[in-house]
Amino acid sequence: MKEKILIQFGQRIREERNRRRLSQEELADKAGVHRTYIGMVERGEKNITLLNIQRIAQALSRSISEMF
Amino acid sequence: MKEKILIQFGQRIREERNRRRLSQEELADKAGVHRTYIGMVERGEKNITLLNIQRIAQALSRSISEMF
Repeated sequence: MKEKILIQFGQRIREERNRRRLSQEELADKAGVHRTYIGMVERGEKNITLLNIQRIAQALSRSISEMF
Repeated sequence: MKEKILIQFGQRIREERNRRRLSQEELADKAGVHRTYIGMVERGEKNITLLNIQRIAQALSRSISEMF
């Protein structure tokens, strides 16, 4: 699973996470997801669901539309 | 599973589908998903994945950010 949209979305998460100086583990804690999950999403390896998109966007203080 | 974001997203799909005078079955065919799936998504009963969000947005000639 290495679809372009998943890779693009993962890059957006990494960009916003780095802007906030958060580690993957800190972001995972804020979003309420598993710490290894953030790494997989950032590499485009996960076909993320809408509920997790929302959790991660909220943890980054971004709207969902701002993530795309 | 009846989370607010899923219900909101489902309503956006229905709105755009109706604007284009497409039946659920026609949209399913265009998006390459199962016909019963569109009804479930429109009712907020499915935690839709990003790949299916993209398929449905493309079938509605919308960007992903325009759907949120």
